[in-house]
Amino acid sequence: MFRRRLTNVVPAAVKFSHQHNKFFSVEAAQRVAPLTDGLVQSLQRIVGNNNVSQAMAVREQHGKDESYHVCAPPQVVAFAESVEQVSGVARLCNEHRVPLIPFGSGTGLEGGINAIKGGVCLDVMKMDKILAVHPEDFDCQVECGVTRKTLNNYLRDTGLWFPIDPGADASLCGMCSTSASGTNAVRYGTMRENVMNMEVVLADGRVIDTAGKDRRTRKTSAGYNLTNLFVGSEGTLGIITKATLRLHGIPESSVSAVCSFEDIQAAVDTTVQVLQCGIPMARIEFLDEVSIDACNKYSNMDMRVAPSLFLEFSGSPKSLDDNAEIVGEIVKMNGGSDFKWATDVDERNLLWKTRHDILYACMALRPGCKPYSTDVCVPISNLPKVVVESKKYIDEAGVIGPMVGHVGDGNFHVFFPVDQSNPDEIKTVHDVSVKMALLAQELDGTCTGEHGIGLGKRELLLKEFGETGIEVMQQLKQTMDPNGILNPGKVFF
Amino acid sequence: MFRRRLTNVVPAAVKFSHQHNKFFSVEAAQRVAPLTDGLVQSLQRIVGNNNVSQAMAVREQHGKDESYHVCAPPQVVAFAESVEQVSGVARLCNEHRVPLIPFGSGTGLEGGINAIKGGVCLDVMKMDKILAVHPEDFDCQVECGVTRKTLNNYLRDTGLWFPIDPGADASLCGMCSTSASGTNAVRYGTMRENVMNMEVVLADGRVIDTAGKDRRTRKTSAGYNLTNLFVGSEGTLGIITKATLRLHGIPESSVSAVCSFEDIQAAVDTTVQVLQCGIPMARIEFLDEVSIDACNKYSNMDMRVAPSLFLEFSGSPKSLDDNAEIVGEIVKMNGGSDFKWATDVDERNLLWKTRHDILYACMALRPGCKPYSTDVCVPISNLPKVVVESKKYIDEAGVIGPMVGHVGDGNFHVFFPVDQSNPDEIKTVHDVSVKMALLAQELDGTCTGEHGIGLGKRELLLKEFGETGIEVMQQLKQTMDPNGILNPGKVFF
Repeated sequence: MFRRRLTNVVPAAVKFSHQHNKFFSVEAAQRVAPLTDGLVQSLQRIVGNNNVSQAMAVREQHGKDESYHVCAPPQVVAFAESVEQVSGVARLCNEHRVPLIPFGSGTGLEGGINAIKGGVCLDVMKMDKILAVHPEDFDCQVECGVTRKTLNNYLRDTGLWFPIDPGADASLCGMCSTSASGTNAVRYGTMRENVMNMEVVLADGRVIDTAGKDRRTRKTSAGYNLTNLFVGSEGTLGIITKATLRLHGIPESSVSAVCSFEDIQAAVDTTVQVLQCGIPMARIEFLDEVSIDACNKYSNMDMRVAPSLFLEFSGSPKSLDDNAEIVGEIVKMNGGSDFKWATDVDERNLLWKTRHDILYACMALRPGCKPYSTDVCVPISNLPKVVVESKKYIDEAGVIGPMVGHVGDGNFHVFFPVDQSNPDEIKTVHDVSVKMALLAQELDGTCTGEHGIGLGKRELLLKEFGETGIEVMQQLKQTMDPNGILNPGKVFF
Repeated sequence: MFRRRLTNVVPAAVKFSHQHNKFFSVEAAQRVAPLTDGLVQSLQRIVGNNNVSQAMAVREQHGKDESYHVCAPPQVVAFAESVEQVSGVARLCNEHRVPLIPFGSGTGLEGGINAIKGGVCLDVMKMDKILAVHPEDFDCQVECGVTRKTLNNYLRDTGLWFPIDPGADASLCGMCSTSASGTNAVRYGTMRENVMNMEVVLADGRVIDTAGKDRRTRKTSAGYNLTNLFVGSEGTLGIITKATLRLHGIPESSVSAVCSFEDIQAAVDTTVQVLQCGIPMARIEFLDEVSIDACNKYSNMDMRVAPSLFLEFSGSPKSLDDNAEIVGEIVKMNGGSDFKWATDVDERNLLWKTRHDILYACMALRPGCKPYSTDVCVPISNLPKVVVESKKYIDEAGVIGPMVGHVGDGNFHVFFPVDQSNPDEIKTVHDVSVKMALLAQELDGTCTGEHGIGLGKRELLLKEFGETGIEVMQQLKQTMDPNGILNPGKVFF
């Protein structure tokens, strides 16, 4: 019964990818009802004349993220400068039943901000103040437009940092919105564990502090956990305008290293064994030979073209030596090369910049292409199987699919460079991606570890939670946004 | 405006404590409409004849937790043995609009399970299977009735443990329900960070897996974070029947120590300085001289009766020595005594058993009394002020108030032993408690770090979130439990 109803609700993967590519076109967005002049004028009154634009260039820039999803421009772009303005715009859109899409750095990978139903895009990047830093309490409060690199530059002299690092220089509230993570999650957790409070504007313009006004405690049992309801809600439940974030002390010392392996299995087995020994790794990242090749070309490196691990150890100098020694032995047992060390700051920064630039490096393999990214995450004991099988799927499909991942968390990506104008190519890649996700789900995993659902993984979300789970999420959505104005068409169909 | 409306909604603190003590009496629970025979028979059909009891002894045992809140027995107690039974009982209660209160170990401290509106108490402690342990993935899955000590005994030979440790041997799903923590939270976080997935029965009997069926990944961005919506919801949104929990490796080596100080300020200043130096403490617990005296008597110890810190260091032997040395210097700078070391396992266990038994030790100061516990939590830089002021409030009120806390998280308790039959005494203690909570809230803190809201802190929750925040929580409650059957009268008025 359940299976049958599921099939009715969701188009098959193959069908979907076809429809999908057609559906999210510029034309589709233009088919929605035109905005009234009154609405545009009201917008101007709220945010100021200079902060409203209907120019096609501005709309197109706000109609796509960094992914392969075809641009779907909003009908108008407004730039907010305060929470009062965000609240006013929400109230206006809610009254007029017009879609409202919050826009940050535009660096998402699942089409999360594409305006597939038209409406108002609200760019919040002008709200970019760092409001407070409490070094003695290891926390800070930022407005929504502050990016992670801006924050870390600002913190430079405090001995503290905010470690969550998706590759891009994303806005911190955008990172809240997708529950982002990155290479440091194995040590510091994801956004979920590092956001203490948020100011959120609801669909009807009400403003709440998710953990209570000014609250910034390390723990709380006071009422429902609204903070974590909004973290990862992808702009569908409210617009995040401020975040209170946990900071961490910069480790006393750190060293990084690269080592290479004969095959993927050996590299992944090494990761699993290192984690199972309880070694507190700062970072442990996997790159297959295709990714290494892409890095060498894009970042002008000369690493051995083979499946590799990028490792980082941090802590006191003593513990660092101890841990590196144990990991070195595990690497050797799996037939890995000696460590190539990056000890001084410049070398380490170069290594991690190379790693963070990998999305762009992979795209440079096929100039003009855009990334279709997979994002499966599984319990680490199931990682070798998923990685090895995925590689087979990629090879069988005959596509370029560099593989790279936060294997310490059981999470990895294939960054397929795809030609957006070629539906057959997108279909082929989509099929591989769905096969990987289904395998991961079968092995107690998820289709998305850190990118979110957006447009691209809605059918997989349904598979992952089943009808009842999705029903509950949709009930929550209905409660928080009864008119369905907030980022419509995302997360759910 | 806001202030005026608040006053209308919430009775003043003093009024409340009086009403409160009268209201939650045995008689009050008996004034609700009697259950129909049909309902009791239906219950018997669902869980079996032997699993339903209306005996007063059983009802009274299920009408109170360990706190001062006067027993409010349910009208009937049912014992569930499977999720199907829990679901059946929920459906039945929902159809009949009868309150349904899930019951675990009964070790809460805020009257969370008192049946103030009568109804069915569903005891889930017979569901006590450890369903899976995945040592290689550092996770396990348990049924709702498994307690934390049972789990840790079971894990003994794996080298793993589940570190969250409220003093009592609570059921793990009860710990999910209140978002419990304890002495190890400073290192391992609270339940919020250590629950990966839960099976939850909703008010209408639907069953969901909050992170998707069988999902047990270290991270996920798939859909709304239902897991953390239910963690800390105190039985008001659903009944937790299974939990998938993160496990941790037992540290290579650990040592504990006690040191004493001339005054409270010095002890708390030491804590703040240790944390601000970024020392990775395993535990750092504060006990004032009244608590130390209670421990000496109850646990037959001979500690110096003075404000003290119980400390634990863990990790590699080398890092342990380094950290202990730095902390030793900070202690000395604040005029603290030398460490009294507990190095072997038995000594360490004795020390931490003493700490975990402190609630009972405090009650033994006034035999026959029950605990009224405060639970404020503030950013650590504000901790000295709140602790010192609180001590003044206690002294001014002339009551016995031993003070003890997880100061590494900025969280501490005063365990007032109160005579349940003396409303004046409860009023005096309640006033001190409210003053402490208001001060904490003013200093960016919360009224509850780990005990939850239950019956006792509903007015403070309203103060903490303001009307809009509470409105949003109540909208969520209304969505998940439209007939208001789940643990009514808790968290909100």
